[in-house]
Formats: sequence, structure tokens, C-alpha cells
Amino acid sequence: MTSGSPRPVTLSDVAAVAGVSLSTASKALNGSTRISATTRARIEDAARRLDFRPNALAQSFASGRSHTVGVLAHRATSTFSHPVLIGAVLRLGARERAALVYDGDRLDRNRVGESVRQLSARRIDGVLIVGDGHEQRTRSLTADFHAPVVYAYTATDDPDDLCFLPDNLDAGVLATRHLVGLGRTRIAHITAMYESIAVRRRETGFQQVLASSGLTQVGPTRHGSWTEEWGARAIGDLLAEHPDVEAIFCGNDHIAFGVLGVLERRGIRVPDDIALVGVDNWEGVILDQGTRRLTSIDLHLSEIGGRSVDALLDGVMLTGPQYQAPSVVVGATTGC
Amino acid sequence: MTSGSPRPVTLSDVAAVAGVSLSTASKALNGSTRISATTRARIEDAARRLDFRPNALAQSFASGRSHTVGVLAHRATSTFSHPVLIGAVLRLGARERAALVYDGDRLDRNRVGESVRQLSARRIDGVLIVGDGHEQRTRSLTADFHAPVVYAYTATDDPDDLCFLPDNLDAGVLATRHLVGLGRTRIAHITAMYESIAVRRRETGFQQVLASSGLTQVGPTRHGSWTEEWGARAIGDLLAEHPDVEAIFCGNDHIAFGVLGVLERRGIRVPDDIALVGVDNWEGVILDQGTRRLTSIDLHLSEIGGRSVDALLDGVMLTGPQYQAPSVVVGATTGC
Repeated sequence: MTSGSPRPVTLSDVAAVAGVSLSTASKALNGSTRISATTRARIEDAARRLDFRPNALAQSFASGRSHTVGVLAHRATSTFSHPVLIGAVLRLGARERAALVYDGDRLDRNRVGESVRQLSARRIDGVLIVGDGHEQRTRSLTADFHAPVVYAYTATDDPDDLCFLPDNLDAGVLATRHLVGLGRTRIAHITAMYESIAVRRRETGFQQVLASSGLTQVGPTRHGSWTEEWGARAIGDLLAEHPDVEAIFCGNDHIAFGVLGVLERRGIRVPDDIALVGVDNWEGVILDQGTRRLTSIDLHLSEIGGRSVDALLDGVMLTGPQYQAPSVVVGATTGC
Repeated sequence: MTSGSPRPVTLSDVAAVAGVSLSTASKALNGSTRISATTRARIEDAARRLDFRPNALAQSFASGRSHTVGVLAHRATSTFSHPVLIGAVLRLGARERAALVYDGDRLDRNRVGESVRQLSARRIDGVLIVGDGHEQRTRSLTADFHAPVVYAYTATDDPDDLCFLPDNLDAGVLATRHLVGLGRTRIAHITAMYESIAVRRRETGFQQVLASSGLTQVGPTRHGSWTEEWGARAIGDLLAEHPDVEAIFCGNDHIAFGVLGVLERRGIRVPDDIALVGVDNWEGVILDQGTRRLTSIDLHLSEIGGRSVDALLDGVMLTGPQYQAPSVVVGATTGC
């Protein structure tokens, strides 16, 4: 853009270049059949050469569509909601839709009604509800809108709602398969509180792979919190009881980092003596540079936002939870 | 919302309730003076009682304004751009504006022209450009738009551009004042590469406070990278040369965590023997629970996004860089 401030090309410009009246140009570009083929070709050629873009606002008004999607972000300040929300607004932009984003306060304070009225006044084309990843099913808001509604990173109490979610079961499966694939047979699991559905799904995936591989879990699953502190404490107990453990599937990366710190301090070689896998690909989020230490499972939260937008705009006829496939990101804790 | 799916109240509803024609209702609500005061009052009363919201899309079209702001997100996937971008879209939503967000690929690939044309066709009310916090001044895009342009988290090569930035100088000042306020006099600085403007600004703030407090820096500033690895390496050298150091200002939280790990392993008490301050309030970003360990400087990146939006919508007449005041968040590494 070295040409300075561009005045948008208007239909009048096109008409002038094509040597026709404004109304003829309008008819031709709106597909009227009452224009001769020659004239139409001349007008279309002028529009192409001038890079004519019809006024999107006028088109929106004519079509009754705003090309705007309402986004209700529940607790948008939650760290893990960030990539979902950003994945959503970027996909909307890539598809030439604007996002009208209301923050979670309105949901928390049961002020959804106000958001619904505002969004209805905007004649939005659809509504995307972005959750905070907590496992409680949220109340369905679908009936509150005339426009289609899709949910990202939250499940609702209505089985007909279309909800895009991370696949925590498959996260456990992938992590454990990865460790088994390294030839480890003595594998333990350190994770967060049993009350979390994500915790239980990851654990189920872990145990399914062990069972299908003919392996027995080393010790019981150790339930605590999502913190480094818990990882550091749990690995101490695990090593005291099972010094021959060969691999640990950690419920998230924070737990894994706590485990890793203790192993390093004790001079236990990672991955030679003990291999480690976490969940969240946290280093992928925070690393601008430096070497990846931890092998982790990436839940592809940003893609959950993107797929939700695609489903909303494409009007897919799916219902119920849709699980986003995770993937293994290999770091030094299992790398060769 | 227990009332099910609401049909938006229309102007016809208002006219019917007020017992006037559609055109009279329209004139009254559009401020025409050719309606009697009594009739106007009756129509306004009906509109209020029905909670009538004029069709925002039709209003937009009539006013020539889209109530949509274009957001060009340069490298939006950068971790530190996330809070800026989310702060911006939430503030836009709070002010009833939609965001049309284009991702950084278009900037990277010099395809800004395409974004400009798309945004012009939308008749957007303004443009917010969200940078990636890197210190290189980006090329000004202001002249490419008819609408007002504001920059968040990036500076441009045009001194007339309005740019909202973190205050890295004040970050150094606050961190060092905090350490001096604890009574520490032997203070060192471990930070990232000298080439970074943020590094040099934070260092300048550090040295200004030392000078004004009559203190001398312990050893030279140690320049490395933004990583834990660098923090762990640098603290080893620092302790070897200056075992009597009492406090360390770390250029960011990753460096501080690297330092903290080494101090803990060596049994050096934090903060009793050595107090630590980082920058970024990283634990504020990642912590859903658990105890805050690190004292840090919060640069308030989300507020940078929010203030940029306010400036854009309010049409403030400022030019040049505007610095967001940071604040100290006290954790265990300086806490009492």
C-alpha cells in the first residue's frame, strides 16, 4: 500500500467506466436478466478492473444479515479460554464475520437476558458461547435466540446442543500409548482431584491402554491438584513406594514440571530412568524460544474455537458433544 | 430468561400499542417535530413499556456507521498478544461494537492491502492494530484507512500515531523501589538480551532507583535470554562472585523462576537471604489455584487492549506513545 488512502470504488465508478447508467450497472451486477450479454460483460469487466467491492453494509441491510456473530464468553479471563476465544474470533475474521463479544460477567450475574436483547437488536447471524472448560454442564441458552447457537469448550444440559470439547479420554490414551511405545511397562499416574471430569476421563484413557497392553498400573492413581507443588509431593511418595517406576503419565504439565524438578534434584535421569508425559502443551503456549523439555498432549483449544465457528457458519446438522482430537508433542522427557 | 425465545419488538408493535400509524411512530421516535407533544409522549411511553430496541442494523445503515471496528492482529498467536487482543474485543463488546479480527498472517505476508479493502467495504468505524510487543517499530498503516486508527502493544514509525504500550521503564522503577523498600542495599540485575528495548528500559528504571537511593549495583547487569535456563545459569555465576547479594531484580518471571530453583536447591532462604522480583505476573496468568510464589510486576496487557479501544471510540486527540502504568503484585519471594 504505497498509494495512500484509498477511496472505495463505487458502483458509479463502475457505471462510468462501462459507459452505462447507474441503474443498468446495478441490474447487471445483481444478476438481472434484462441486460444484454454484451452490456453485462462490459460492466463485469469494469467491476473486475476497478476491483469493485459492493458496500458490505448496504448488502447486509438488503439481505437482512449483519455478518456479525455474537460471542458470549463465559469467564473469558480463564487462561484456557483465551486460545478458544482467539481461535474463534480469528476464524470469524477469516470468514469475513465480525464478533460481538460479551464477557462472562453477564453470564455470572445471570444477566444473559440483556445480552440476548442486545444481540437480537443487532440481528446477529449466530451465537457462539465460549465456556471456561470446567466440566459442569452449563444451562442451554439455545432457546433464547432466534439465530443458531454453538458451544465451544463447554457442555450444556441439552443433548441437542452442538458443543465442541477437548477429548480428555483420547489425551489419556495418546499419552499412555506413547509411553508404552517407548517400551516402558511400569507406568504410574499422578493427576488432579478425582472430582474433575477431565481428570477421570484422562485416567480412563490411561487405564484402557494399560489393560489392552496387558500391563498393570504402578500403584494407585494419585489424586491431588493441578499444581507443581502437588507433582513434587506425589513423586516423593511414589518413589518411596515404587522405586522401580519407569514412566509417569501426569494429569497436566504443571504436575509434570513438579515431578521433573524432584527427579532432576535427585539425579534421576529423564527419560533414561523415568519418562514423563503431561497434558496441555503448556510450553507451546509460553515458549518463544528455548528448548522444549516436556512431552505433552496438545488439546488444540484454538482449533476448538475455529471448528465451532465453522459449524455455526456452515450450519452443520450435528448435535451433542463433538470431541477435538488431541496430539502428542514430543519433548526431552520422552525424546530420544 | 425463562420466557422462551423472544421475538424482537418491532416498530409496528409500538405503533399498535400507541394507537398511531407506523409512519407516525417512526417520525416520533426519530425526533421529528411535526408530531404533537401528547402523541409523542404516548409513543415514547409505548416504546419504553415494550422495551423497544430499534433494529440496530437498519440504524447502522441509516447512520452510515457499522458499529464494527476492524482489528488487525499482528502475530496474534504470540502469548503476550492474547491478553491485549482479548482485552480489546471484550471492551468493544462492552461498548456494543463488533470486532472484525484479521490475523497477522496478512500483515506478515504484506497482504495488508487486502485487509484494508475488506475493512473499507465494511465501512468500519475504526481500526485497532494489535502488535506482538516486539520493540521494532512497525510501519504505520494509518494512511491506509479513512477511519481512525489506534495501535496497541506496538509502536510505529509515525510519531503522530496513537500507540498504547507497556511502561517498561516504570516496571524497572517499581521492582527496584519495592526491593529497596524492603531494606535491601546489595541488589543485582539478571535479564535478557541487551538488544531488546524492553530489557534496556527495565534496566534503566532499575539503575535510576539505585542512583537516587545512593546504592551501587551488585556486579554488572547479566544479559542472556528470557528463559529459566538462563536464570539458573546466571545466579550460579552471581553467587560465586557476590555471595553477599541480598536481592535480585529479574528481567522477567521465567528468569526469576530459574533463579528461585537454584536458590531453593542450595538451601538459600527466599526472601530472608535473597529477595526476588520478576516481571509479567506470569502466575496471575496461569494460576487458577495454589499459592503465589513470585513477586512480580504486572504490565496490565489486557488494560492496554481496553484503553486502546476507549481511545479509538472516544476519538481522543492524543498522539504518540501512551504508557500503561504497571503495578507490583507481591508474592512469597519478597512477602513477609
